[in-house]
Amino acid sequence: MAILERHDTNRVAHLRLNTPEKLNALSDAMLAALQDQLDQLRGDRDVRAVILSGAGKAFCAGHDLKEMQAGRQAPDGGAAYFADLFTRCARVMQSIRTLPQPVIAMPHGIATAAGCQLVATCDMAVAATGTRFGVNGVNIGLFCSTPMVALSRNIPRKQAFEMLTTGQFIDDTRAQELGLINRSVPEDELMAETQALAELVAGKLGAAVAIGKEAFYNQVEMPVDEAYAYTGEVMVQNMLLRDTEEGINAFLEKRSPDWAD
Amino acid sequence: MAILERHDTNRVAHLRLNTPEKLNALSDAMLAALQDQLDQLRGDRDVRAVILSGAGKAFCAGHDLKEMQAGRQAPDGGAAYFADLFTRCARVMQSIRTLPQPVIAMPHGIATAAGCQLVATCDMAVAATGTRFGVNGVNIGLFCSTPMVALSRNIPRKQAFEMLTTGQFIDDTRAQELGLINRSVPEDELMAETQALAELVAGKLGAAVAIGKEAFYNQVEMPVDEAYAYTGEVMVQNMLLRDTEEGINAFLEKRSPDWAD
Amino acid sequence: MAILERHDTNRVAHLRLNTPEKLNALSDAMLAALQDQLDQLRGDRDVRAVILSGAGKAFCAGHDLKEMQAGRQAPDGGAAYFADLFTRCARVMQSIRTLPQPVIAMPHGIATAAGCQLVATCDMAVAATGTRFGVNGVNIGLFCSTPMVALSRNIPRKQAFEMLTTGQFIDDTRAQELGLINRSVPEDELMAETQALAELVAGKLGAAVAIGKEAFYNQVEMPVDEAYAYTGEVMVQNMLLRDTEEGINAFLEKRSPDWAD
Repeated sequence: MAILERHDTNRVAHLRLNTPEKLNALSDAMLAALQDQLDQLRGDRDVRAVILSGAGKAFCAGHDLKEMQAGRQAPDGGAAYFADLFTRCARVMQSIRTLPQPVIAMPHGIATAAGCQLVATCDMAVAATGTRFGVNGVNIGLFCSTPMVALSRNIPRKQAFEMLTTGQFIDDTRAQELGLINRSVPEDELMAETQALAELVAGKLGAAVAIGKEAFYNQVEMPVDEAYAYTGEVMVQNMLLRDTEEGINAFLEKRSPDWAD
Repeated sequence: MAILERHDTNRVAHLRLNTPEKLNALSDAMLAALQDQLDQLRGDRDVRAVILSGAGKAFCAGHDLKEMQAGRQAPDGGAAYFADLFTRCARVMQSIRTLPQPVIAMPHGIATAAGCQLVATCDMAVAATGTRFGVNGVNIGLFCSTPMVALSRNIPRKQAFEMLTTGQFIDDTRAQELGLINRSVPEDELMAETQALAELVAGKLGAAVAIGKEAFYNQVEMPVDEAYAYTGEVMVQNMLLRDTEEGINAFLEKRSPDWAD
Repeated sequence: MAILERHDTNRVAHLRLNTPEKLNALSDAMLAALQDQLDQLRGDRDVRAVILSGAGKAFCAGHDLKEMQAGRQAPDGGAAYFADLFTRCARVMQSIRTLPQPVIAMPHGIATAAGCQLVATCDMAVAATGTRFGVNGVNIGLFCSTPMVALSRNIPRKQAFEMLTTGQFIDDTRAQELGLINRSVPEDELMAETQALAELVAGKLGAAVAIGKEAFYNQVEMPVDEAYAYTGEVMVQNMLLRDTEEGINAFLEKRSPDWAD
């Protein structure tokens, strides 16, 4: 059985972390499997949205601590291994952000440390009622410094700081209030709700969504003057797509668009 | 009848988009009218706050799609026209941001695409109960890339991303929770409530408000060290105003200030 | 009696502004006392968290306006004095941000202007029920330009802009909704609640918290690519701490860590 399962339905690819006995930890093997799937999805024009979930009782509990401790056996005490590990982990996170298709996290149970980072990194998130989120590495002396890159770009500062320095969890209601997730639903509705959101996005013009997602994360880091100059060019590029011309004509003529997409 | 009406009351200029048959679309003519009024207001020391509203059943439904499609008739397929259009539109948005006087959006009905961008761009917003906000260009294949510049600087990322990729609307309650508007009131109280807010701001020392508004948007894009160095200088400049000296004296003497302003 | 009291309990230093007759204004003397204590705390490895509160009926009402007006007697009308004052004030604020130990504001009564800035600047804040927060300098003609540096990095833009240009106060409930404070509790529980939060943080591995706090504020200002490269290195540095190795081992062995820290 694969440690990362993939099932495609209606142009939505569903990736499921599948090492429940390890709470779907981001082991070396899991990071490699995620990177491989993301690399494949990048050029897959049949897939228009991605769902990321975890098998078993938890979404993801972060890094594989046993594997990390084993890395200390190297002559350098693990320095090179750790540097490589965090580089590979960040590459997976950035691959989610730069994937042309929107990625929706579907957490349940717990999402902690790098597991919470995965939720924060995805473009959207729908959680099961009762899911708990934490960046609790501080409890074992390892501050969640890489997870906070994603977390602090999702929720306000004082609330992020409290989670990071106390190690305490927040529940799905609080996560929604703070902006970490889009919403939560009872666990027996989770798959249907998330699939419906994914299909809603998958039904849009794929080229427009891809252009927009890339522009979203690019412009948000720019000064506003530069952001307008940049997105103005993006709008021109979008307007010149034949399918966009058809989409606007269809709207003006009150009919459905006939997209080649 | 002007496509952009202006009525001034108690040092508050009220600009009203007035092409209700087009849902107050930001046509070439409307953008030009807005730019012209904003340019006039910039140097008008009698006006201390601005309200922006729309006539008819909606605040603003974004760009004029028929006019945009007509632009495709040019030999270049509209590329130059579109580039110019988005430049002019961004210039209007940036003129609101850089106007010395605070600008309050007063939306009702719907505010979509560039209409939602107008709300996000204004310094503050008071909406009618029941107003719906959307960046729904994705539904016709045109991702709202320029509107998201303003939107993503007002509300959290995952919530902005959902609006942009699903095209779904949010209501006034949700808009307030997310930070897109300051508050909403029943439509029959909308004008009075917004005018009261505008007059409250208009009653402050105009030079201080102008200094502060400019500094607000400048500092928010700076690293914090630089922001403190910059705003420290702004505070000195503010302190050296004669009216500020009088304002502080009046406060210490428990009397009303006698401002030349 | 010292204008700034300090009491240490269980590795938590409690600094209390103690000029209640001036509503604990940030006078030249108070700024100097704060800077002195912060400089001492920086290297004090026995202290792991700091609480900042105010004696009397208010937390802090901002700058000392009488002292500021007196500064105008200089030949330059106060320009040099004001520039120096805002530089010293910003240095205190930045010293809180760069202090290795987390700092928790514990406001009650009112926190206005630079007093509201202190709350926004601290890493976390627990307020008494009924506390009111304002950046109301605009009411006397002095826009709160330095306070807004901290405020606008805590709460959404339109809500910050409204506070700054209307001078109106928000209560503790609204402050929590917006992200300015972590929570509020009845005044008779305030000290115990805040001390408990401080001790919770003080009980973590101090080196990890110090590494993490520094990285938190550094990474939040970086583009996300750079933030990951930077925090990846921070994680390696953290992993190589002997106490972190012990912390992870203890967790895997289901026992309490035996930290040298």
